[in-house]
Amino acid sequence: MQAKKPSESRTIMTDMVLPSETNPLNNLFGGELLARMDRAASIAARRHSRRITVTASVNHVAFNQSVPVGSVLTVEAAVSRAFTTSMEVYIDVWMEDRYNGKRSKANEAIYTFVAVDETGKPTEVPPLEPESALEKERFDAALRRKQLSLVLAGKMKPKEATELRALFME
Amino acid sequence: MQAKKPSESRTIMTDMVLPSETNPLNNLFGGELLARMDRAASIAARRHSRRITVTASVNHVAFNQSVPVGSVLTVEAAVSRAFTTSMEVYIDVWMEDRYNGKRSKANEAIYTFVAVDETGKPTEVPPLEPESALEKERFDAALRRKQLSLVLAGKMKPKEATELRALFME
Amino acid sequence: MQAKKPSESRTIMTDMVLPSETNPLNNLFGGELLARMDRAASIAARRHSRRITVTASVNHVAFNQSVPVGSVLTVEAAVSRAFTTSMEVYIDVWMEDRYNGKRSKANEAIYTFVAVDETGKPTEVPPLEPESALEKERFDAALRRKQLSLVLAGKMKPKEATELRALFME
Amino acid sequence: MQAKKPSESRTIMTDMVLPSETNPLNNLFGGELLARMDRAASIAARRHSRRITVTASVNHVAFNQSVPVGSVLTVEAAVSRAFTTSMEVYIDVWMEDRYNGKRSKANEAIYTFVAVDETGKPTEVPPLEPESALEKERFDAALRRKQLSLVLAGKMKPKEATELRALFME
Amino acid sequence: MQAKKPSESRTIMTDMVLPSETNPLNNLFGGELLARMDRAASIAARRHSRRITVTASVNHVAFNQSVPVGSVLTVEAAVSRAFTTSMEVYIDVWMEDRYNGKRSKANEAIYTFVAVDETGKPTEVPPLEPESALEKERFDAALRRKQLSLVLAGKMKPKEATELRALFME
Amino acid sequence: MQAKKPSESRTIMTDMVLPSETNPLNNLFGGELLARMDRAASIAARRHSRRITVTASVNHVAFNQSVPVGSVLTVEAAVSRAFTTSMEVYIDVWMEDRYNGKRSKANEAIYTFVAVDETGKPTEVPPLEPESALEKERFDAALRRKQLSLVLAGKMKPKEATELRALFME
Repeated sequence: MQAKKPSESRTIMTDMVLPSETNPLNNLFGGELLARMDRAASIAARRHSRRITVTASVNHVAFNQSVPVGSVLTVEAAVSRAFTTSMEVYIDVWMEDRYNGKRSKANEAIYTFVAVDETGKPTEVPPLEPESALEKERFDAALRRKQLSLVLAGKMKPKEATELRALFME
Repeated sequence: MQAKKPSESRTIMTDMVLPSETNPLNNLFGGELLARMDRAASIAARRHSRRITVTASVNHVAFNQSVPVGSVLTVEAAVSRAFTTSMEVYIDVWMEDRYNGKRSKANEAIYTFVAVDETGKPTEVPPLEPESALEKERFDAALRRKQLSLVLAGKMKPKEATELRALFME
Repeated sequence: MQAKKPSESRTIMTDMVLPSETNPLNNLFGGELLARMDRAASIAARRHSRRITVTASVNHVAFNQSVPVGSVLTVEAAVSRAFTTSMEVYIDVWMEDRYNGKRSKANEAIYTFVAVDETGKPTEVPPLEPESALEKERFDAALRRKQLSLVLAGKMKPKEATELRALFME
Repeated sequence: MQAKKPSESRTIMTDMVLPSETNPLNNLFGGELLARMDRAASIAARRHSRRITVTASVNHVAFNQSVPVGSVLTVEAAVSRAFTTSMEVYIDVWMEDRYNGKRSKANEAIYTFVAVDETGKPTEVPPLEPESALEKERFDAALRRKQLSLVLAGKMKPKEATELRALFME
Repeated sequence: MQAKKPSESRTIMTDMVLPSETNPLNNLFGGELLARMDRAASIAARRHSRRITVTASVNHVAFNQSVPVGSVLTVEAAVSRAFTTSMEVYIDVWMEDRYNGKRSKANEAIYTFVAVDETGKPTEVPPLEPESALEKERFDAALRRKQLSLVLAGKMKPKEATELRALFME
Repeated sequence: MQAKKPSESRTIMTDMVLPSETNPLNNLFGGELLARMDRAASIAARRHSRRITVTASVNHVAFNQSVPVGSVLTVEAAVSRAFTTSMEVYIDVWMEDRYNGKRSKANEAIYTFVAVDETGKPTEVPPLEPESALEKERFDAALRRKQLSLVLAGKMKPKEATELRALFME
């Protein structure tokens, strides 16, 4: 299969934060943001694979920035690395202030999707060919993240996760 | 502040999976499950702290089990450990088959919440006192998870995460 | 068919009250509560019968307690009596105050469901065997309620509703 | 206060039945119908009283007719009798077949609303003056229904409910 | 096919404006009003044709009146002219003030629908026979609007739009 | 005020078409598309003006392309011309086939928004400076559209709409 570039799967989902999605402090619920990111990332994975895609996992996500009602929120997702039948999708989230239009980073997240056929069976996806420096950095880190994911799932022994282990040994 | 037990924050959210929440294979979107778990876990954290609670992070979540439209889904959340102003909430998800009523584990997840006052400032929460063996096991593991979280956020050096590091050194 | 206990169908649905579900006084719409109770009760009926269940009727419901936005609402439903193909489900609703966590009874309701097969034809359900004193009391009252329901629907003459009639004759 | 006619509060709410509101047999959930009727009836009560109105109770409702997805559903509500601060609203529901446009009665229900001021305190409403034969019949029956409601709520002794008692004594 | 009158397709959709449908000034989003009008108009077109109907176009709509949250909004739609397989639907929108119940015109719009069979193929519809003076006026204007629509779509040369052209030549 | 370019307001809203938004042929409702376009266009207008923006009008929209459930839909909006306190926003809609990923034009639309302050009073916006050939073409056509809009609203006499009139006189 022919390799694809991150730009070919890049998905931009801009929308407002409505009152029905906010907590008692009038900020977006964390869970609503997780759901929006899943929708955008799932479209990115579908654009890369041209297959039905199902969420396989979501990496650790921290919510450091509250997003007030009325903000414009932009979720931007692109495939950061492809494995045999799965794809890691990197998601950047920006918000724009309702009053001054100032744009700031609201979050980042990493989801993994599996491409499946109409019966739900995993199916092969094209490799990813990163272009920019940031895309290459994310591509390299994706391997370490996959190892961590396997370790946490008990499918790989910590000592076999060569690259990841290096992190704790320096 | 007086310690509380996990049973005091246990929150059960049973509901059906509707067609508007499913992907092209008629299974629940991963993102919708993340949003339901966030709502249940946020209530558990509120029951423990009696404060407004905001999502601080969600740990790595794997989706190994697809949940078909029409399933009955039970999300069960309880505080697993309390720190100064934050709480780890452990979530178990079960589904029941639409036809034979058979109940099976659909997922597990771990969210962290911060208790805040009306101005959004973090505020102290009661300690947690685990009772059952499972509750104690989750209580102990919560410390390792907090270390991992700090390492991944760049707020703790890997070599200082004593307990976590041990995992990779054995 | 083997009898089942109320605990086998007990269904707990805890969730927050969102701004999109409230009236101009910022309290939960009565209709939204009726819809939540229907979903919980329908799951309880399904757990008892392991069949598709359709709402047959809802008894008189009074709304004596307003439920403010931001409250945590717990709807708890369990089958209270089974007839040939129908089940009475008793629903208790509690709310927790957003600020002090105090729990109070918000409502009670009684729905009846019919178990049907895939073509919509009514199908037999297991009998119910109450255990606790409250479950037995509700089980006994269910018969009088069925008589009232038949009288109101014009399917039973008032003078034939022996138990119900006694109420007005004492 | 000057009396009003049922036609002055008549409220018509026609809308389609969408897939997200239907059960596994693709028929409208009973609870969704209860919620739609509550919205229409609440508007009728507001039109009669020109006040905020809150649902006080819903009478026994039977669901004899299933409403398939794609049907056009018309909920028609009008105040049937006014008491000091409360109003009984009578609701007729019709559905139109998706294919042949045939219109049939899908349901009937009776809700009671209380008019309140901005602080939630009950406030007086105008009397109702029925015009048509059907409106007069519903107006008369409203009194018997109010007695039944008081008896069921334990606020009136069965033997004091003169009109209602007559029903069981003939 | 036998002609039908506008009254046979008249569709009334009364509902409240909820917080989840409003902009930062707490007024109904223009887009939400467009969606409500499309649903009502689509039902009117279905009532006239007894067919599945799909939106073909919406004429220029101006929003001169803001509709505050909590308003009761009535969308009234009726077929204003039928062509071979399409129908023009005229929509009047009224709102009632939340406090004094005063009714005022909130908007007007004109949508066009095509009747189709189960495969999506356009299919013939009955002619329309207007009755009232207003219905006749809208019936006549519908022809000029159709010409303008064809000109704007590049399917008719401006100089062939006899009636429309007259408007600019006087 | 300093002029802005269309690229500074360009807003991209990519999302899936869900079952709850589709008609009996499983295609997106026209009204849902109108609502999505309004949200995207309103964000574009806000990005240009850094003010609250309210929908003033939507031009004639034709629906020539049906959008099946499961499609990925991209709504792209950018300000095409600014007047004193209003902005014309041009919207392009693309859809991607669920199976082969093929992208095709699904629709075009033109909305007008007014910038307002917190009290709802119209307020001045920066001028627009088009860059590309397409942006310049849309910029020029915007003036003719404004004239047509004024003529249709009865606020300008047809013979005064110099540019528009030329269209019908050639």
